[in-house]
Amino acid sequence: MLEEMGKAAKAASYQLSVLSTEQKNQVLLTIADHLDARSAEILAANALDLADARQNGMSDALLDRLALNPTRLQGIADDVRQVCRLSDPVGQLIDGGQLDNGLRIERRRVPLGVVGVIYEARPNVTVDVASLCLKTGNAVILRGGKETWRTNGATGRLIQAALQQHGLPAGAVQVIESPDRALVSQLLKLDHYVDMLIPRGGADLHKLCREQSTIPVITGGIGVCHIYVDISAEREAALKVIVNAKKQRPSACNSVETLLVHEAIAADFLPVLSLRMAQEGIKLHADARSFPLLHQGPAKVETVNEADYRHEWLSLDLNVKVVADIDQAITHIREHGTQHSDAILTRDIRNADHFVNEVDSSAVYVNASTRFTDGGQFGLGAEVAVSTQKLHARGPMGLEALTTYKWIAWGDDSIRA
Amino acid sequence: MLEEMGKAAKAASYQLSVLSTEQKNQVLLTIADHLDARSAEILAANALDLADARQNGMSDALLDRLALNPTRLQGIADDVRQVCRLSDPVGQLIDGGQLDNGLRIERRRVPLGVVGVIYEARPNVTVDVASLCLKTGNAVILRGGKETWRTNGATGRLIQAALQQHGLPAGAVQVIESPDRALVSQLLKLDHYVDMLIPRGGADLHKLCREQSTIPVITGGIGVCHIYVDISAEREAALKVIVNAKKQRPSACNSVETLLVHEAIAADFLPVLSLRMAQEGIKLHADARSFPLLHQGPAKVETVNEADYRHEWLSLDLNVKVVADIDQAITHIREHGTQHSDAILTRDIRNADHFVNEVDSSAVYVNASTRFTDGGQFGLGAEVAVSTQKLHARGPMGLEALTTYKWIAWGDDSIRA
Repeated sequence: MLEEMGKAAKAASYQLSVLSTEQKNQVLLTIADHLDARSAEILAANALDLADARQNGMSDALLDRLALNPTRLQGIADDVRQVCRLSDPVGQLIDGGQLDNGLRIERRRVPLGVVGVIYEARPNVTVDVASLCLKTGNAVILRGGKETWRTNGATGRLIQAALQQHGLPAGAVQVIESPDRALVSQLLKLDHYVDMLIPRGGADLHKLCREQSTIPVITGGIGVCHIYVDISAEREAALKVIVNAKKQRPSACNSVETLLVHEAIAADFLPVLSLRMAQEGIKLHADARSFPLLHQGPAKVETVNEADYRHEWLSLDLNVKVVADIDQAITHIREHGTQHSDAILTRDIRNADHFVNEVDSSAVYVNASTRFTDGGQFGLGAEVAVSTQKLHARGPMGLEALTTYKWIAWGDDSIRA
Repeated sequence: MLEEMGKAAKAASYQLSVLSTEQKNQVLLTIADHLDARSAEILAANALDLADARQNGMSDALLDRLALNPTRLQGIADDVRQVCRLSDPVGQLIDGGQLDNGLRIERRRVPLGVVGVIYEARPNVTVDVASLCLKTGNAVILRGGKETWRTNGATGRLIQAALQQHGLPAGAVQVIESPDRALVSQLLKLDHYVDMLIPRGGADLHKLCREQSTIPVITGGIGVCHIYVDISAEREAALKVIVNAKKQRPSACNSVETLLVHEAIAADFLPVLSLRMAQEGIKLHADARSFPLLHQGPAKVETVNEADYRHEWLSLDLNVKVVADIDQAITHIREHGTQHSDAILTRDIRNADHFVNEVDSSAVYVNASTRFTDGGQFGLGAEVAVSTQKLHARGPMGLEALTTYKWIAWGDDSIRA
């Protein structure tokens, strides 16, 4: 079955690759209109998924993430209309020129071809990813969380109806409509048809893909993020940024998990940190040097262990460690981080430069919250995923990350000497 | 053992990443000087490798590829000096600007970190790849063909001596000095330390890497390249390009393997093709429609089969197939090609555009030999490998392909709203 889907996707990708931006936008607008007009079908499928999930004892928080309603569907349709307004990277001339060998060469941006996306039980992702792939002329095979397979299936059929209205094949957007996990393993081996695989989920999914996929994979989304409070940091400003980075959305991968504090300011800074964290309901996990200083304060505090330093809390928990200097902070980040987002709070320009140069993360911040790592915040207009690997794309991935290039060479019956 | 090498490489990569271009060039010049001054050590190691290979019955052609002599070593040293003259992509500002959220953002080009390269018994690759990696601030782990392990080992030690002279760690360039194949499997799993893996070898090596590596891999180097002779092609010009594409270096991956000829010119073109191919010593493998036309001519001709169409001849053999039109040619290329290099010979501007838009290969040519697909010919100054996948880099990979970027964001105690 997946072999057939791969074949259909590849065939569709050739048709999509030569569409004009205007043609692609027309398809997107039709999808948005269908989402408005046929919301009842999707909500009915979602109700069945929700009933199953409730019966299986899913938590209220997860049920809420899974649930659609007319307002949320409206928001999804509006997001598709927003994708129309983004500029289309396909066809851009990256570079080129006349070569000494007589060729006129150009490097032209083209779609990747077929993209595979594996994601969790967020029903909005189906439309979101499909619209970004269509905008960039890619076919896509989607495999959402098994808890939302009916919702995703209904959404996929709606998108395919819109495609057919424009004379485009259903193979352009295909949803794997089955909760069977074995299909994921099959998808990972479709390298003959699929050009890029994006897993959007937890560490286990990324590990599975890295180990089993024969398709090039973009891994990411795991964030053990750090803030280093330098000797020259200002106390109040530092507290403001720390609270934002931890609390603005604790479950996000770009929220901070570990605070590294210069030893020269520890005695002064840690007691006020405890006070502020207590007010904000943030629990601290302290190393041997910070524990005595934090223990006196009002914040809840526990002893941190080595495993905690590598853990994404994704909750109102924060590790605290005292470091001897900026280099010890950098070493800690290299050894425990996930190369996602790391920040320095400082008033010293040379320390800022040193940190920026030496910390090898996708996003490095000076005097800013780690929470900014996001396609929208970085001005990309959209976000397909956040990559923490170094090949192809790094950090927030916008439309450009869904493209590659080809070399086009124009000769005059040219031969190599 | 490989775990230790990975650790050393990662540690070295941090030191390399902050070197200036001038510092990196100094190291390269020292390596070139050592290659001149200490050539005896390398030639002695090479003589032992050669003796073993001869005893194991290696062919003269392969022995010649393996052999070093003072002139060849001189050439290798000169190539290193040439790398000094290339411009250094590290530190480039790719894009950036002031964002509405208050951040000043930049996307800065940085080294990948640690690169792993697996290659065949070409002793020049060791120095070649090491110098390109050093120029871009990357550490590298090299695993050459098992037939050249002594030569590569001696070369690696020479490079490490040059590194140490500049206060740099030996971990920056490490050669796996053992013919044991199990070490390759270990290297493929070093994802904790190695950021990119480049296999340079045959299809089996690429398949092994795609299936077993947990490190992002660049696959490529397999070229089933096509030339489509359009209805409007000029006979003599076409023959000139075909001969060049097949014969200028038949063993190269960018040499042509299959000729697709428009049916309307077949009766006119194929007899002269036979004549010219006979003169050039090129043997033809003909489909059912071209066979009768070629059979009359002087060139050797056999019947082609489906497997031949997917085969890299790498010899003076050429498949010939008659197609009904340009779209049938494009379909054949999509189904049988390796997305390496494909050309159209035509005088029709619309057919040229159609071919360029629809053929999804790394390099697409109009009226030029496929033999141009090469980092040097494309003006990149160097070539690390030729990628036929779509992620990260496509076609000839120059220095830029050995880099990634990081997002750097400068705030003013900025928090996300």
